[in-house]
Amino acid sequence: MKEAKGQKYKSSDSGYNAWLSYPVLPHGSLYDQYVKWCGTVKVTEENETIQAALQEWRQGIESMLDIKVSSESEGLCIAIGTFQGGNAVIRSVFAEDTIAKVGSEGFAIRTRAEAGCIAIGGSTPAGVLHGVFHLLRLIGSLSPIEQLDEVVNPVNGLRMINHWDNVDGSVERGYAGRSFFYENNRIVDDLERIRDYARLMSSAGINAISINNVNVHEWETLFISPAYLPDVSRIAGVFRVYGIRLFLSVNFAGPMHEGELETADPLDPGVRQWWKNKAAEIYEAIPDFGGFVVKADSENRPGPFTYGRDHADGANMLAEALESFGGIVIWRCFVYNCKQDWRDRKTDRARAAYDHFKPLDGKFNDNVILQIKNGPMDFQVREPVSPLFGALERTNQVIEFQIAQEYTGQQRHVCYLVPQWKEVMEFNTHAKGETSLVKHIVDGSLWGNRYSGIAAVSNVGNNKNWTGHLLAQANLYGFGRLAWNPDLSAEEIASEWISLTFGTDPVVSGTISRILLDSWNIYESYTAPLGVGWMINPEHHYGPNVDGYEYSQWGTYHYADHQGIGVDRTVQTGTGYSAQYIGSNAEHYDSLEDCPDELLLFFHHVPYTHVLHSGKTVIQHIYDAHFEGAERAAELLTMWSGLKERLTEDLYVQVEDRLQEQAGHAKEWRDQINSYFYRKSGIEDINMRSIY
Amino acid sequence: MKEAKGQKYKSSDSGYNAWLSYPVLPHGSLYDQYVKWCGTVKVTEENETIQAALQEWRQGIESMLDIKVSSESEGLCIAIGTFQGGNAVIRSVFAEDTIAKVGSEGFAIRTRAEAGCIAIGGSTPAGVLHGVFHLLRLIGSLSPIEQLDEVVNPVNGLRMINHWDNVDGSVERGYAGRSFFYENNRIVDDLERIRDYARLMSSAGINAISINNVNVHEWETLFISPAYLPDVSRIAGVFRVYGIRLFLSVNFAGPMHEGELETADPLDPGVRQWWKNKAAEIYEAIPDFGGFVVKADSENRPGPFTYGRDHADGANMLAEALESFGGIVIWRCFVYNCKQDWRDRKTDRARAAYDHFKPLDGKFNDNVILQIKNGPMDFQVREPVSPLFGALERTNQVIEFQIAQEYTGQQRHVCYLVPQWKEVMEFNTHAKGETSLVKHIVDGSLWGNRYSGIAAVSNVGNNKNWTGHLLAQANLYGFGRLAWNPDLSAEEIASEWISLTFGTDPVVSGTISRILLDSWNIYESYTAPLGVGWMINPEHHYGPNVDGYEYSQWGTYHYADHQGIGVDRTVQTGTGYSAQYIGSNAEHYDSLEDCPDELLLFFHHVPYTHVLHSGKTVIQHIYDAHFEGAERAAELLTMWSGLKERLTEDLYVQVEDRLQEQAGHAKEWRDQINSYFYRKSGIEDINMRSIY
Repeated sequence: MKEAKGQKYKSSDSGYNAWLSYPVLPHGSLYDQYVKWCGTVKVTEENETIQAALQEWRQGIESMLDIKVSSESEGLCIAIGTFQGGNAVIRSVFAEDTIAKVGSEGFAIRTRAEAGCIAIGGSTPAGVLHGVFHLLRLIGSLSPIEQLDEVVNPVNGLRMINHWDNVDGSVERGYAGRSFFYENNRIVDDLERIRDYARLMSSAGINAISINNVNVHEWETLFISPAYLPDVSRIAGVFRVYGIRLFLSVNFAGPMHEGELETADPLDPGVRQWWKNKAAEIYEAIPDFGGFVVKADSENRPGPFTYGRDHADGANMLAEALESFGGIVIWRCFVYNCKQDWRDRKTDRARAAYDHFKPLDGKFNDNVILQIKNGPMDFQVREPVSPLFGALERTNQVIEFQIAQEYTGQQRHVCYLVPQWKEVMEFNTHAKGETSLVKHIVDGSLWGNRYSGIAAVSNVGNNKNWTGHLLAQANLYGFGRLAWNPDLSAEEIASEWISLTFGTDPVVSGTISRILLDSWNIYESYTAPLGVGWMINPEHHYGPNVDGYEYSQWGTYHYADHQGIGVDRTVQTGTGYSAQYIGSNAEHYDSLEDCPDELLLFFHHVPYTHVLHSGKTVIQHIYDAHFEGAERAAELLTMWSGLKERLTEDLYVQVEDRLQEQAGHAKEWRDQINSYFYRKSGIEDINMRSIY
Repeated sequence: MKEAKGQKYKSSDSGYNAWLSYPVLPHGSLYDQYVKWCGTVKVTEENETIQAALQEWRQGIESMLDIKVSSESEGLCIAIGTFQGGNAVIRSVFAEDTIAKVGSEGFAIRTRAEAGCIAIGGSTPAGVLHGVFHLLRLIGSLSPIEQLDEVVNPVNGLRMINHWDNVDGSVERGYAGRSFFYENNRIVDDLERIRDYARLMSSAGINAISINNVNVHEWETLFISPAYLPDVSRIAGVFRVYGIRLFLSVNFAGPMHEGELETADPLDPGVRQWWKNKAAEIYEAIPDFGGFVVKADSENRPGPFTYGRDHADGANMLAEALESFGGIVIWRCFVYNCKQDWRDRKTDRARAAYDHFKPLDGKFNDNVILQIKNGPMDFQVREPVSPLFGALERTNQVIEFQIAQEYTGQQRHVCYLVPQWKEVMEFNTHAKGETSLVKHIVDGSLWGNRYSGIAAVSNVGNNKNWTGHLLAQANLYGFGRLAWNPDLSAEEIASEWISLTFGTDPVVSGTISRILLDSWNIYESYTAPLGVGWMINPEHHYGPNVDGYEYSQWGTYHYADHQGIGVDRTVQTGTGYSAQYIGSNAEHYDSLEDCPDELLLFFHHVPYTHVLHSGKTVIQHIYDAHFEGAERAAELLTMWSGLKERLTEDLYVQVEDRLQEQAGHAKEWRDQINSYFYRKSGIEDINMRSIY
């Protein structure tokens, strides 16, 4: 059902194929170039990953170019294989010094007219697969391929997706349907969708996936037992083909639940032995098992605190059990008092991760990685970078983002998060010399860590298009790409994703790119202002509710009264959180004058009449941002409607529906937030627009 | 396991036996009197209701007096039977003119020393049963029985409990566990608990129970089909023994769901015939079936509006189907726009019931009863009486209360609601002459209605003690007693309930009575102030949340800003709701000067500095009421603790637990409400107490 001419998307798959849709390419000189080179492929290895790469190549090329790929014919060809795999073409094309530069997941790619081929070589099959995805991506985004000569390695070691899927089929903070891993407390029989998911993840650059919720409930505790291990192993087998290692979230109290021990004390010899035995059992079933993800002593999960031990005791015990198998422990730093009294203004949840983990720097085994959320609170649309980045000099660490749009519109609003993640990654911590960017902490280069990388909470489910909102696929793709190479810009990533998903029509590309790149700013502007966060409905976290968390136990307050708003986190009069930053960061945040507008209310309690750097008062900023934000949200819909004739109806309509909802809901945000502050402050909008 | 001496409650049943616990009575002259008369009982009728009365008599007397009841021995006795039942003693004791005064559910009771008996006679077995419960109640509350001579008839015809139980076992707005009627989408097999429930209800005076939620979901729609009717009939059989008629809530769209018709249009001949056939089918299974309860065109339920018909069309169609079988239609007036825009201050949910139903007065068949909630909103701790009372001159009507404490502490806080109900019942509508009390509309006497009465939403579930909070049993008991006789005072009812439940220890009685009688006022004082209502968490409705419904679709707003608060429902500047009342009621409510303090914010929007009749400003009233309310809530616990040695541990502890929770939660209410208004108004508490 292809349409051979033009840019039109192929027959509708409702978005299922995502950025591996391989839309038909337009005829022209590049098309001719592709046809010239790509019709023949040479592969000599039987390895299943290499075979998957071959299959992907066939599928991509046949779809984009509408030709048949042959492995027999003579003439120009694509050669695919490992350097050691016995493919003579590969060996002839790459010099030893090139080969030496290719890491275990990287690849070299070279157009060699003399040899009549474009060769993709890797030191491992996974590297080769990444190379094939790379060339398909180049073609899909209309890049020339006749002068290729590069070595590409991923910048980050760990490039991980965390699923918060429960074995009952529900997904915590899932906005795209139910889990496709589980159904009725079992792992699904049919792994086809999981295989397609692995393809998508691998093509974006992901190499690690934890498949169950960090809140490990009763049944999931048994994932590392014979009751579930054989099925977990089936999934690991699918992942393995695509160069992805499987991780499991484990229950720190597992020895008591499954093992029937009377304690889970990490210093108890029986407990330590239990975990060692457990590790052996797991690696027997899954030889390349990645390791454990652990949420301990957080939001009512069990942990070492129960036994008077610290997080290092807990993590190291697990690390010891995994070490000899090459496994790692990913220990989350999302630890805070979740039963705070809202009357207490001294306790500051933002301080918690630093206060808990900074003192433990250097105490963790070197196969432990601390997983640190990007901000000190919890994935708000705007918060500062976690001060733990820069504070831990002798500890492996990964940054944790949330692809799932829990607080950013829940995949009903469009919110392209790559610009936010980029901002975080480019943040200068001043931890070691003048320039110490988060991305260089995360990639391990600043402190020379054994392990490091980047993780994020998945946004997928069993909705046909994976992510509910079709445009939310850009976040999933973008996360993988950014993890692979943090130097890619948000614009480049958006552009790639659009071409690969919708084809190369420049009108489509221009429009969707603008929608994506504006969307974070738009969402921020009609929701919680100036970094204050949390003005959402409790529990489900969708929709405005200014006081939703104001009198709660969750440590997430704005302290708005008739005079002003904001949380005083300064050293002199506040919680002292600003001092967790280094040097000029600490000074700027602490200073009412220097604090950036967008974080003002995160660090300072100010009167509504306080004048921002923008020249507006806080209250006028609130009004303006909300009026403008809602207007701009409506414009997104208008922009999209310009694509009606350029997209398949199905894709067009599904996004239109969401943008319609967003436009309406943005007005609700606007009116509730504005009315709340107008009623509270009594200060009129200088433009006298409707506030209720 | 009885304790023969003293007032101590019998071995713990956790409250299961409730006011039919029959605590052992103290020795003394009254005890001797009871023993003298009550040891022998004379019954000649085999009728199952008479036999149930006999069984109740034995159980009550043997438990309270610790004696054996004989039906053989000579000497003084109790004679029980219908006037026509062939019991010679009964016939000899009651004169014809006495018998003539006894209605179908009433009884005559007379101590006749010459005949050596106390006779209880009724014109029906149900009347006899009520008489036996009456005498047991007199004994249980230590009243003399040697001069009895009275005829007692219930004041209200319909004395009804509405269950909001779903067949999946859940209970909408249930706070005492799950349903004891249903489990796993079936009616339970074992009817023992339902039998005990029927005993309790009958003893309190109830004669009608609807067993399923007014929101009739998929499965419950089939209650009137062969799939469920045989089981429904089993329950009706149990109810029948205790003089209770079974009602069902029906789905107005039933003909489409069950009958597979294409419409539920009430004027469609096919639909009308369907309901007629349905009625015949039901009465075949349940000859004394009570009728239908209907929630139509309300909160997304189907109804006649779908077909451009009005409520009279809808109700009359059903009434016609039931008429020949003696069945009635109870049609709820809880109809309003539940998708209101909070920005719209013209629409007023309080007006809705009157606006919908006043124009239909006189248009309903005379086996239709309109069921009207006590207030215009929804069972708030304080709201005015519904102006529909007095507005409908030619329409049968019942008042609807809510025994379930949805908005009054959810059976975690103690809130004895009888005083509230009394206030409503004594309200003078001025509808017909100077004195036109709600209770005389409700009992049918004011307008001479064919049907009338009083209904309430049940507060029971499968918790051992039926109502979750043991003290919430007083509401269930009190509702029944008030329905039977609205002239009973809240104090009398409390006193009866305490004696029957805990025994006659005056310390126990005094303490619990004070707790009950203060509780409504206490609850009101620390929750939403001055009649404004609704400052609760959305959906589940437990706990404070001042803005919880402020920006919602539910029509329940307070409009608080930095200057003032309240809903303007006056004629000149507001929604005009006040004009739905008659004469001086309309004038008083409409007037800022005359409006009673406790309803001020229901009718007027006023500045926080407005001075109440109490002499306090509104804001100071809010502060004072909340500080005092929380203090008084804590005192309830102190009072209760004085009973520690006087109650069984189990009963003591279960109430203590709830009072502890209440004391803590009242502080949360206090602090959230006070902080909200302090932050918003900026006005200090004149006593400078802690506000956050």
